[in-house]
Amino acid sequence: MDNSVGIVSAQRAQFDTPLLCKSGVVLPRYELVYETYGTLNADRSNAVLICHALSGHHHVAGIYADDPRNIGWWDNLIGSGKPIDTDKFFVIGLNNLGGCHGSTGPSSIDTASGQPYGASFPLVTVEDWVESQSRLADQLGIQQFAAVIGGSLGGMQAMQWSLSYPERVRHVLAIATAPHLTAENIAFNDVARNAILTDPDFYGGNFYRHGVVPTRGLRLARMLGHITYLSDDAMADKFGRSLRSGKLGYSYDIEFEIESYLRYQGDKFAAYFDANTYLLMTKALDYFDPARAFDGNLNRAFAAAQAKFLVVSFTTDWRFAPQRSREIVRALLHNKRDVSYAEISSNHGHDSFLMEDAHYFEVMRNYMNTIAQEFAA
Amino acid sequence: MDNSVGIVSAQRAQFDTPLLCKSGVVLPRYELVYETYGTLNADRSNAVLICHALSGHHHVAGIYADDPRNIGWWDNLIGSGKPIDTDKFFVIGLNNLGGCHGSTGPSSIDTASGQPYGASFPLVTVEDWVESQSRLADQLGIQQFAAVIGGSLGGMQAMQWSLSYPERVRHVLAIATAPHLTAENIAFNDVARNAILTDPDFYGGNFYRHGVVPTRGLRLARMLGHITYLSDDAMADKFGRSLRSGKLGYSYDIEFEIESYLRYQGDKFAAYFDANTYLLMTKALDYFDPARAFDGNLNRAFAAAQAKFLVVSFTTDWRFAPQRSREIVRALLHNKRDVSYAEISSNHGHDSFLMEDAHYFEVMRNYMNTIAQEFAA
Repeated sequence: MDNSVGIVSAQRAQFDTPLLCKSGVVLPRYELVYETYGTLNADRSNAVLICHALSGHHHVAGIYADDPRNIGWWDNLIGSGKPIDTDKFFVIGLNNLGGCHGSTGPSSIDTASGQPYGASFPLVTVEDWVESQSRLADQLGIQQFAAVIGGSLGGMQAMQWSLSYPERVRHVLAIATAPHLTAENIAFNDVARNAILTDPDFYGGNFYRHGVVPTRGLRLARMLGHITYLSDDAMADKFGRSLRSGKLGYSYDIEFEIESYLRYQGDKFAAYFDANTYLLMTKALDYFDPARAFDGNLNRAFAAAQAKFLVVSFTTDWRFAPQRSREIVRALLHNKRDVSYAEISSNHGHDSFLMEDAHYFEVMRNYMNTIAQEFAA
Repeated sequence: MDNSVGIVSAQRAQFDTPLLCKSGVVLPRYELVYETYGTLNADRSNAVLICHALSGHHHVAGIYADDPRNIGWWDNLIGSGKPIDTDKFFVIGLNNLGGCHGSTGPSSIDTASGQPYGASFPLVTVEDWVESQSRLADQLGIQQFAAVIGGSLGGMQAMQWSLSYPERVRHVLAIATAPHLTAENIAFNDVARNAILTDPDFYGGNFYRHGVVPTRGLRLARMLGHITYLSDDAMADKFGRSLRSGKLGYSYDIEFEIESYLRYQGDKFAAYFDANTYLLMTKALDYFDPARAFDGNLNRAFAAAQAKFLVVSFTTDWRFAPQRSREIVRALLHNKRDVSYAEISSNHGHDSFLMEDAHYFEVMRNYMNTIAQEFAA
């Protein structure tokens, strides 16, 4: 933790201008919880926005004074002298609208009813998130981001920034992401959603008023998710066919180590994550498809982008495979955009984007250093 | 249906000699339901056993007089002049012990209690199945099979025959299978099992006496299974990102065609398949590992085999990938066994083994013709 950003604290921003979501639903007001690391420079040109993925949040780096073991989820990447160097950049992390870590979401109290939103919370999209984030940027006095950065669903937001607000982002770092989900991706999400939706404790999304949580469904969703975040090879290396007790038990209790791992991950997640947030996050993933408005033509979709891009993929990521990143790169090149692409050899599947890897981090460091020179000069 | 085996009917075989399962549990008696096609020749040398996979059964070919739309699951492969030619071979299909299509299984009445076995039914293994099948062969007067054939979990049984009863099988056709499951395979099975085990209607496996069925869990298990039976490419070709109504609905109802397909398959399966059978079938898959008794050395495991082998894999099968078939081939070659191997280019993933494909069926036909010449000569 030598070059950690150290003790941080979350802040809240209030938005009273109604947000018209893509679904047509209007959210009259909302709050976003966020953290910042580093210092905004005089001309406000060094701001970096970090967008989170399905289960992420605003606590991206550092620790809390009252909870020193709660380390930010991308702390390995962000700090003094780290690839995203807080001596140079002013870094913002937020919890997305619809989240369950402090920003307004399905588990928040709807002031109109005095009850949690539950099923009445709108299905927000990546476009809605970018809109809500742009208002946060307004409040913080940031006209243009030096970079918007994200992995997976976060990468989709980073790309959407370049389409919704081309003039407000100079660089997009789109990591382990895709221009849209495949049928297989949607299928996995739908199984996860059905696990939650058919849990008798879900109550159509209004479980809060029943004093229960659809733990079974959330647990299954997370177990399934974990399989797709890892690679076949990584699971083979880490767990193989190892038996927890050394011999077969001929029962449905945990026998193989991989079962122990998955069930533990599922239980841990189900104990804190909001089921409605999980559902809407998977829907935002399914819906993201900038080419849809252009008859499926990604080249035309990216014509609006003005930012420079770094696109990064990982060899064993089968959920967002390198070929999906290359689709993004090709569409950008078609539009004569400035794009760098790195395909990192990694054994860790989709989870690679969260892990420290020498090659990956060097690519990120070099790219961020180049950005820093723009405003240092 | 020109060269179908036509109208068939199931038969029952009763076994009163106790079966000692690998788990240590003794099954005092059991019944197997089976069908046969073709005619056993005078020296009983033309018998072929078809072993089924997770959701298969004894109705492998032909139709029933009272249900002409119920066509056997491998009818495309088996019949007069078909690759497994019933003019030459006497073909046997059975429902495995523990199944839910007529053989003794968890939903059968335990005569000791007068109640369905439920949770008390033993977790049967591939070895147990081969043992129970060998007794069926005894009853039918078949000392040696010309071939034992199976895909997926059925392929595991075919291989196990060559290890448990090397002298009783001349040829093994092991299709779309593996010498053991990987951690990822086990992980998918464990999610499916947990969907069933945590369904409130499962009642620890004794749901029969409560008059309910764990439909939610079975449905999720089948939905997940289907994803792994198909290939990413096949799903992209068949469903892509097509929307059922042509536009986004911003709800958790079915939106994408792939969701419609999966939910339909899940509902259909949950309406007839037994949850306990599903559980024990997945466990049999997880447990199969002939190398375990030899410190993981597959070469030593296959030293017992005397049969000749045809091993077939499919390029887009990521559940039982071609590399897994090549592990089998290498271990057989190490033991100087006679082995043919075909890697079929197919877009249909694991399901390819059930589908008519010119190259695949030609390989099967040629191999079966070679076998037929042994006893024709």
